[in-house]
Parts: sequence; structure tokens; C-alpha cells
Amino acid sequence: MVKPLVGVIMGSTSDWETMQAACTILDELQVPYEKRVVSAHRTPDLMFDYAEGAKQRGLEVIIAGAGGAAHLPGMVAAKTELPVIGVPVKSSTLNGLDSLLSIVQMPGGVPVATVAIGKAGAVNAGLLAAQILGIKYPEIQERFVARRKVVREKVLADSELA
Amino acid sequence: MVKPLVGVIMGSTSDWETMQAACTILDELQVPYEKRVVSAHRTPDLMFDYAEGAKQRGLEVIIAGAGGAAHLPGMVAAKTELPVIGVPVKSSTLNGLDSLLSIVQMPGGVPVATVAIGKAGAVNAGLLAAQILGIKYPEIQERFVARRKVVREKVLADSELA
Amino acid sequence: MVKPLVGVIMGSTSDWETMQAACTILDELQVPYEKRVVSAHRTPDLMFDYAEGAKQRGLEVIIAGAGGAAHLPGMVAAKTELPVIGVPVKSSTLNGLDSLLSIVQMPGGVPVATVAIGKAGAVNAGLLAAQILGIKYPEIQERFVARRKVVREKVLADSELA
Amino acid sequence: MVKPLVGVIMGSTSDWETMQAACTILDELQVPYEKRVVSAHRTPDLMFDYAEGAKQRGLEVIIAGAGGAAHLPGMVAAKTELPVIGVPVKSSTLNGLDSLLSIVQMPGGVPVATVAIGKAGAVNAGLLAAQILGIKYPEIQERFVARRKVVREKVLADSELA
Amino acid sequence: MVKPLVGVIMGSTSDWETMQAACTILDELQVPYEKRVVSAHRTPDLMFDYAEGAKQRGLEVIIAGAGGAAHLPGMVAAKTELPVIGVPVKSSTLNGLDSLLSIVQMPGGVPVATVAIGKAGAVNAGLLAAQILGIKYPEIQERFVARRKVVREKVLADSELA
Amino acid sequence: MVKPLVGVIMGSTSDWETMQAACTILDELQVPYEKRVVSAHRTPDLMFDYAEGAKQRGLEVIIAGAGGAAHLPGMVAAKTELPVIGVPVKSSTLNGLDSLLSIVQMPGGVPVATVAIGKAGAVNAGLLAAQILGIKYPEIQERFVARRKVVREKVLADSELA
Amino acid sequence: MVKPLVGVIMGSTSDWETMQAACTILDELQVPYEKRVVSAHRTPDLMFDYAEGAKQRGLEVIIAGAGGAAHLPGMVAAKTELPVIGVPVKSSTLNGLDSLLSIVQMPGGVPVATVAIGKAGAVNAGLLAAQILGIKYPEIQERFVARRKVVREKVLADSELA
Amino acid sequence: MVKPLVGVIMGSTSDWETMQAACTILDELQVPYEKRVVSAHRTPDLMFDYAEGAKQRGLEVIIAGAGGAAHLPGMVAAKTELPVIGVPVKSSTLNGLDSLLSIVQMPGGVPVATVAIGKAGAVNAGLLAAQILGIKYPEIQERFVARRKVVREKVLADSELA
Repeated sequence: MVKPLVGVIMGSTSDWETMQAACTILDELQVPYEKRVVSAHRTPDLMFDYAEGAKQRGLEVIIAGAGGAAHLPGMVAAKTELPVIGVPVKSSTLNGLDSLLSIVQMPGGVPVATVAIGKAGAVNAGLLAAQILGIKYPEIQERFVARRKVVREKVLADSELA
Repeated sequence: MVKPLVGVIMGSTSDWETMQAACTILDELQVPYEKRVVSAHRTPDLMFDYAEGAKQRGLEVIIAGAGGAAHLPGMVAAKTELPVIGVPVKSSTLNGLDSLLSIVQMPGGVPVATVAIGKAGAVNAGLLAAQILGIKYPEIQERFVARRKVVREKVLADSELA
Repeated sequence: MVKPLVGVIMGSTSDWETMQAACTILDELQVPYEKRVVSAHRTPDLMFDYAEGAKQRGLEVIIAGAGGAAHLPGMVAAKTELPVIGVPVKSSTLNGLDSLLSIVQMPGGVPVATVAIGKAGAVNAGLLAAQILGIKYPEIQERFVARRKVVREKVLADSELA
Repeated sequence: MVKPLVGVIMGSTSDWETMQAACTILDELQVPYEKRVVSAHRTPDLMFDYAEGAKQRGLEVIIAGAGGAAHLPGMVAAKTELPVIGVPVKSSTLNGLDSLLSIVQMPGGVPVATVAIGKAGAVNAGLLAAQILGIKYPEIQERFVARRKVVREKVLADSELA
Repeated sequence: MVKPLVGVIMGSTSDWETMQAACTILDELQVPYEKRVVSAHRTPDLMFDYAEGAKQRGLEVIIAGAGGAAHLPGMVAAKTELPVIGVPVKSSTLNGLDSLLSIVQMPGGVPVATVAIGKAGAVNAGLLAAQILGIKYPEIQERFVARRKVVREKVLADSELA
Repeated sequence: MVKPLVGVIMGSTSDWETMQAACTILDELQVPYEKRVVSAHRTPDLMFDYAEGAKQRGLEVIIAGAGGAAHLPGMVAAKTELPVIGVPVKSSTLNGLDSLLSIVQMPGGVPVATVAIGKAGAVNAGLLAAQILGIKYPEIQERFVARRKVVREKVLADSELA
Repeated sequence: MVKPLVGVIMGSTSDWETMQAACTILDELQVPYEKRVVSAHRTPDLMFDYAEGAKQRGLEVIIAGAGGAAHLPGMVAAKTELPVIGVPVKSSTLNGLDSLLSIVQMPGGVPVATVAIGKAGAVNAGLLAAQILGIKYPEIQERFVARRKVVREKVLADSELA
Repeated sequence: MVKPLVGVIMGSTSDWETMQAACTILDELQVPYEKRVVSAHRTPDLMFDYAEGAKQRGLEVIIAGAGGAAHLPGMVAAKTELPVIGVPVKSSTLNGLDSLLSIVQMPGGVPVATVAIGKAGAVNAGLLAAQILGIKYPEIQERFVARRKVVREKVLADSELA
């Protein structure tokens, strides 16, 4: 299982600070992935090629992060049959409200599975990809369940405030 | 394939007007599903039982719709390893902005795959469930692809404005 | 001057109710245009072809209207060197705030000339196209100036409230 | 009166910075309380047990603080007959507007007594708990009234701006 | 128990349409109450007298509803030691967002227990008053618990969507 | 003319940082004023006394600044026939949007002349007070006009960007 | 006293529905006024002439109403030394939030006395004009005080909800 | 081609930090421009003269940046037949949302081509001016196309995240 199952893309190198949280989760859960910058606005043809070829190259889920007028997740979703997870990157002016609305308010026909703004969203994008793959690959689901248990134990251990 | 793969739940009977759009899509794509009202606030134990038993009963994806301080999708996601799709139902006072933020802004650890506010979101919840299942069941993916093609043809046919 | 100079496109037939206001203005100012539905999400390849070929076909300005997670204006702008005017169509849930932010908050590199939400914006899209063309075609600028004068006279004539 | 009357809970250890302001007030007014981290999303069963057993353990008011898609106050309220006070913790992206709407916009049937976003809200949660208990325990009401008088005197003393 | 325990006040007769939902709940739970219009802005002295005398007249909880720049709940809270529940009435221009922020964002020192915008909030104000009184009067708590059970049974009975 | 014509009040000493900008303008225009902290919520009786006696003490305009659920300007306006200028102080969580809506959205009957959020608003409160007094006291109007001219000259002098 | 003291202007004839509420108040209080449509965008020169000549023609206060990107109040304020009251007219798309921010957020140097969005704001604009004039003309202040008393009596008479 | 084709104006010297990004782009694309501070509120007559004389002086496009209640772009647009590009400068209190709405929500009749809030918007204003001029001056369009290609190559070169 070394061929990537998840494609993690983002609109700009500056989004990497946020999106690496998704990759950390995928590493943790041993979900093979690839990552690269694909800009909807500056490299539109690359974006279309990427989306169109994603399934053929063996990808099964795409995670796309972008900020501001964030068109990457929705446009990739328009060009692939794979489920697309959208991460609204926090923008410098409107705190990511623009990113969120640009990603989540898709018209009927082309869904984007949107998660929270910023790093928490990137973490959850990695976990959601694992949950989606988990219905096909039991070992990924098991690792997801195991991780959740570890987190729960940790919260319980720390729950007595010093 | 008659055992339900998708559980469609909603916080109140009044959400059915919105959520039936998800069921219509699942019918169209021949994805077996079950549907019921499960209220996070008025039937919390039922909600927990539902979420906890979902996988054992053979469900693979859950679609949860709710409005206002919409806790159903996030709480179900906290209790199951299955991917959960959240539909923000349009609320009477704040137009669903409260529903959207209550569903999408989940903390790192418990993702909800959030779609658009209202009926367009419910349509997309049905399609997203099919896309997720499609990576495991090729026939669902094929039907998804076929439906998308039909929609595209229709848009093209109507694109000359009379 | 019968070859269209302006391409008026919109994401859905339901946007026509708004966008026809732009066409009415272009008719009034005798600016030749073409109009059609081009959906970023449902006909992405058509959108790219349209944008890519726009200049070669003689268009000089594009007006694109869309609602919700409105990607049409920005994606067309990514694929053409022509100035693109974006009209945020009023959405059913968030009153067009989502449309506005999805269109106007473009990243540095790919501008969209954004106008107001809804019909007033469509009117202004038509006028802005005429102003842009007017710096090249003096007769269009003259008609723009003449129309503005007529409007001013009318406001002045009606300014005494009965 | 050493058995806790108020349970102060919060979704994460990072909420303690905000929530300790509630505890400081309870200390000041000599209202016995307990405090701990109870996460709606990471320890849902603990949350339900906590809420369900709260009355039996002698608690009379619960203060619950959470941020983002803040489900803790509302879910606890769904599982107890005790009054629940919700504190919207300021979130890193949307300044606590998401926390506020997730807590206050509860559907008819399950109230959460919501206070202001952030530390001012935590202070007021402590005071509101004291006011609620004060209708049963006159000595708490007396201390509340005395504290308010001290604050008023202090404002009056400082009201001449140097 | 015929002397009122709850004072239900509102800023204008037009708020009655919303606030009667609180009274209906109080009737249902047999919580004695009084109701009247008390305007912060048009009858400020009456408001102060009302708040100042509330405890002496035997009231134990005050429910105050107002819209727009809604100052009634906060000003009453500034003048009484009783817990004050604030109901943001939906406003004609900003849908009650102004009412909500004017009520909930109280500075540290003077809490208002804020509930949801509009009728759902008024229902919850009635229930919250009963919960608060319930810690002193067991029979009110019992009725609250019984009502909640009835609601739950009803939700369960209707949960199979026809 | 040494008796104060303008009363500058604010809800808390922390508002002084903002409100001193109003006093600086009044000093500049030689408009006599008094200033003090008057808290709507912590010193409500002082607030009422202040407002009620304002005209008798010779004040002709009141400037009131407050933040969050900002009730001071509106409540003072309810208790005096003098024009009241409201300054929304920037709040720590919602950037003063809560302050603005709490001040400006007054119901018909009790106006507050609202200016911008923060220091620019405080500057303008001082200027607006001078404009209002200027219709009665020509020398204040003259100073206002002179100051405006100086500002204009300065803008013109600096308009060539180095 | 038949020469107008107040100039009531608005950006469009469609604003008259809102702005007539200001005129009704001025009629009630016997404050002489003139009214007309003056559009910042369609009749800019008229607007400047109007503002520049306002004082010379004997006006002492200007009330200006406008909606959307509402520039009329601020631009008139830039061209006159008289106090200018701005009424944000409710807009069809953003409910007047755009009108409010366009009017109230003036930079330091040019104040606009902003009132609430819509009809309540227009009523208050009329009252505020009377309060401002009242510091110079005692008879106007007396009528303002008398009207307020009548309103208070009426609220008190209706305060017992039937 | 040394006579300026573009006029870059801004409401205050503090806007230069943002607006210089537009000038940098114009320099890059060798589009001759002039720049200066023109304040709608502090130098209204200069603004009108500037706008009125713009075409006669040979300008073909105007870029106007302003913040808060940003009236400069719309008022200039009201006084010239040239296309006007508006840049919403980020404001200190509301992050530029006020600037954006004040600029983009123009009534039908007077368009402003609005770009994103802040520096990204200023960059795009420069590019949009070049696109508009490019339909008349092929060499500007060529430089625009060449620059876009360079940017694309750079994104592609950096797309492999280290």
C-alpha cells in the first residue's frame, strides 16, 4: 500500500503552514498520500489535469485547501468523481469567513465536504479522509478508532485541572 | 444490496422538508438508506444509541441535518467511526448561518463533512454519500458518473437562453 | 459592429432573471453582445473553452454572474486576458453575501471587477462594460455619457417630492 | 456547605484560561464548586454520565464553557434538569461568534443560559450561578449584593478621570 | 402559591407575540407569574422601580424580552439581585442579531441569562425560569422533568417519517 | 463661557483611551466640557441622576461612549431632552460591532446620534458636538470651520506622495 | 418661523417611503423643513450646491437618507458646517447593514450623526433634529418634551397586556 | 507613451501602504500613471475637479482606494465617464468589511469595479487597469499575458513542497 490514496493539494505555498496538519494525521494513520501546490487561478490547466486524472492514478480521496475566494476545492470537485474535502484557510482580512463560504456554499450537484477554518480543519480533513477510506480498508478504520481512543484517554487523564 | 448503507437522520420532523432532497438523490442512485428523526437535545440517549450501533447495523455513512444550535451531526460524529455528513438546515432567524457554524467549526479530532445550507446542501449530502460509497462499490460510482453526465447534457441543452 | 464585443454568461438559467438587466443596458447602449449559460461546476470544460477562446472570437469584455459559492467569474478570469466583470447573484440563504465574497476576494494575480449584489449589480455590469469599451470606441463612450445625462435630468425632474 | 453546588466544566484544558474567571467569582462569593474538563466530542460518554448524575451528586447549577462548534453546554442541558449556564469561549478564527451562536441558538425545549463571549462571560457565569442559588440560599444572595455594592463604590471612587 | 414568582416584561406591546410563548410554558408548569410592558427607553423610571421592587414583591426570576438596541434585560439586571433572563426579539432589519448582541454581550459584573432569538427563545425563557425555581421548589422541577419526558415520548413516536 | 456645555461620559475607565480623543477636539475648539465615568450597569442610579440633571446644570450636548452591550448612550438619551452622541468603543471580542449595534439600533422615540467605532468616532463626537453647539454659538461654528480649513490645507500639502 | 430650518434629502424617490417618517415628526413638532431628492451619484453637482448653500439659505440641520453604498450623508457633511443626520435606508440585499456601515464609519474629521436602519431611524432623525434645534429654540425643546411625555403616558396606559 | 493613462488616488496618506502595490504592478507592466492623495471628505472640491478633468487630461482608467465609509471610488465614478476601480483598504475596526460594502454596493447607474480588500486587491487593481487598457493597447495586453505566464511558471516550479 505505497501508492498514494489521498491527494493533498493547496492553492499556494503559504497554505502549507495550515495544510501540513492534514499530512501529519495521514502519516500517523499510515494513509499513503501525495501533496502539491495546485492553484485554481494561477495554474488552472494543471488543476483540471490533476482532477481529471486523479482516479486513474489511483487516488480515492482529495483534500484541497485554499483561502479567500477559494475556488480550488469546488472546481476540483467539478472535475472528478472522487469525494473532495475542502479546508478553508484563514484569510488575512476576513478571518476565513470568505474562504468558508466560497467552499461550503456549493450549488446542488457538486458537493465539497467542508471542514473547519484553519488548522483544526486541516487536522479534521486528514481524519475524515481516513474515515472515508476506512469503510473500504478495515485497517485504516482500526487505526482511526485506536487513535481516537488514545486521544480520549489523554483527555480523561488531563481532565482534573491542576 | 437491500440493507441500508446510509443513515439519514434529522433533528426534527420540520427538517424533513429539507432533508428529503438527500433521500431523493439516494433513491435515484439506488443507494439503500434508512431515515428517521433523532434529536440531539430531545432524545439524546437515542442519538447515542443510534450512533454507537450504526456500524454494527451495517451503515457505512451517516447524513445528519439540523438547524440553529445544530449539535446532531457533531455529536453523532463523536460516537461513531463512520464518516458523518452534516446538513445545516436554514433557520428562521439567522438564515442558517448559526446552523452552518455549529456544524462546520468542529474542533480537531471529530470531523463533520459539511455541505451548503438548505436544500442544495441536502442534495449534495446525498451525492457526497454516493461518492464516498463509490470508492468501495464501483456500481454506485458508475451511477454517480452517469447522473453527472445527464445533468451536464441538460445544462448544455438549455444553455442558449431563449 | 455586429460581432459581439461582450460575452454575458451565467452559472444557471435561474440567474437570467438577474442578468438580463445587464443585457438591457447593453441593448440600450448598442453594445453588441452574446449571452449563454456556462456553469463552472456542471460544465467546467465548456467554461474553460469559452474563456480560452473568448479573445480569438473577438470578445473584449466578459460579464459573468453566479450565486452561492460563485466560482464562474474568477475561473473565467484565470483563463483569459480579457477584463472580467463579476455579478454576485442574490442567494436564497445568505442574501448574496456568499456570492459577493466568493467573487470579490480573489487572490493577487487574477482580478475580477466586482459589482453590487443582484439587479443593481447587473445594471452596473452592463454600464461598466460600456465604460471599458468606451476608452477604445468613442461612440460607446458618447452613448454612455448621453444616457447618464438623461438619467440625471430625470432625477432632477422628479426631485420635488409630490 | 462544603459539597459542591456548582459544576464548572469546559471542553478543553485550553478553555481554563477563560473559565478560571468563573471560579474566582465563586471563590469570592464562597459558593462551593467542582471543576473539570469534560469534552462533548472527545469524551461524550463522560459528558453524559456527568450530566445525568449531576443532580444526584448534589449539584444545583452547571457552568459549561466551550469554543467553536460548542456543543457541551447544550448537550449537558439535554441530559439534566438543572439550569445550565453556557460560556462561549473566544475562538481563534471567528472571535467566538461561532461559539456564541452554537450555544445560544438552542431549539425550544432545552435552554442554555448564555453569557458574553470570553472572560467577561466567565465572570458573569459565576455571578449568575450565585444569583440563581441566591433565591434558595439567602447568604449567597447577601454576598452577591455586598459584592455589587463594593464594585459600585469602586466605580464611583474612580469616576473622576485624572 | 398564587403570588407571582416570575415577572415577564417586554419593551413594547409588539413583543407580546413573541413573549407569550414564555407565559404559555409558565402556565403549563403552573409557575405563577405576572406580565407587563416596561420600556427601557420610553418608561425608564417605571423600569427602575420595577427592577428595584421586584424582590420585595416576592418575584424570584425576571424574564425580559426586547428587540433592536435591546437595553431592558441588562438595565433591569443592573437594578436587581434576582437572576434576569433575556429574550432577544427578532428585529425587522437585522433579524435579531442586534437584539442578541445588545443582550448577551454584558460587561463583567451584570449577567443576563440570554436565550435564543425569537419564539424558541421565549419558550426556553419559560423553561429556564422553571429550572431555576426548580432547585428551590421540588414540585416545579418535577413538572419540568415530566414535561421533558412527554416531549421526548412525542419525538420518539413521530420519529418514523411517514 | 467656562460652565461646561458638553458632558463627556463613558462606561468604564478603560474607555478613556478612546474617549480622550473627543476631549482633545473640544479643547482645540474651546468648547467647555466636563468628563467622568458613569456606568449604566454598575452605577445605574448615578447615570439616571446625571442624565436627569444635565440640562439644569447647563449642559447642552452629551457625549457617551461604551463598549459591548453598550447601554449608556441610549439610557441617558431616555432620560434627557438634550441631544446625545454615542461612541461605540471597540470591544475585545467582536471588534465593536456589538457596541455599534447596541447604540445605533434605538427604537423610534429615543435617538442616539451614533458615530464610528473607536477613536475616529470619538474625534467625530467632539466635532459633532461643536457643530450642534455651532448653530447657537457662532464663535464655535467659526472655530469648527477654521479647523476644517486647516485640515484641508494639510491634506492638500501632503497630497503629493513622496 | 416659516423659513425651513431642516433640509430633508434622500438619494432616490424610493427612499421617500422611509424618510417621510422624519417629516411627520417635524410636522408634529412644528419644525419648518424642506424636502427633496438629491442623489450623490446621479446628481453630484446638485448635492454639492445643496450642501454648500445650506447654511446661507438658513438651514440649521440636514437629514440625509440613503441605502446600499450610501454616500449622501457623508458627502453632504464634507461640504457643510451644519450637523448632518444620516438615515440608513434598508437595502434589498443586505438589509441595510451596507447602508449603516457606509454612513456611520466616517473617518475622523467629518461626522455624520447616524440613527437606526429604516423607519425607526427616520423617526429618530426627526426627533434628533428637534433636540439639536431645541438647544437654540426653547419652544422646539418644549414640544419635544411634551411629545415624549405623551408617548410615555400611552405606553403606561397600554402596559397591562389584555 | 509617457503621459499617464491611469490615475491612482487614495483617501489618505495612510492608504499608501496598501495602494503602492497597484503602482508596483503598473511599473512592472510599463503602464504610465500618476498618483496622489485625494480625500472625498477632507478635499471634496479637489476630488470633483480631479474626476471632472480626468478624461481631458488623458487618463483612461482611475484606481481609487479608501477605507471605512469609503466614498472616494463611488463619488469619482459619479463624476467621470472613465471606468473606476475601487480598492477597499483594510480598516482598523471591521477588517475592511465596511470599506468593501461602501465601495461595491453602488446603486444602478454608477458602477465601481471593486477588487479584494487590502494589498491583494491593490495588486489586482493594477492588473485590472492593464487588462482594460489592453483591449486598446495590444502591447499592454502582451505584457499582461507575459507576466501571467511568468507567475504560472513560478507556481509550477514551486509546486513540489519541500
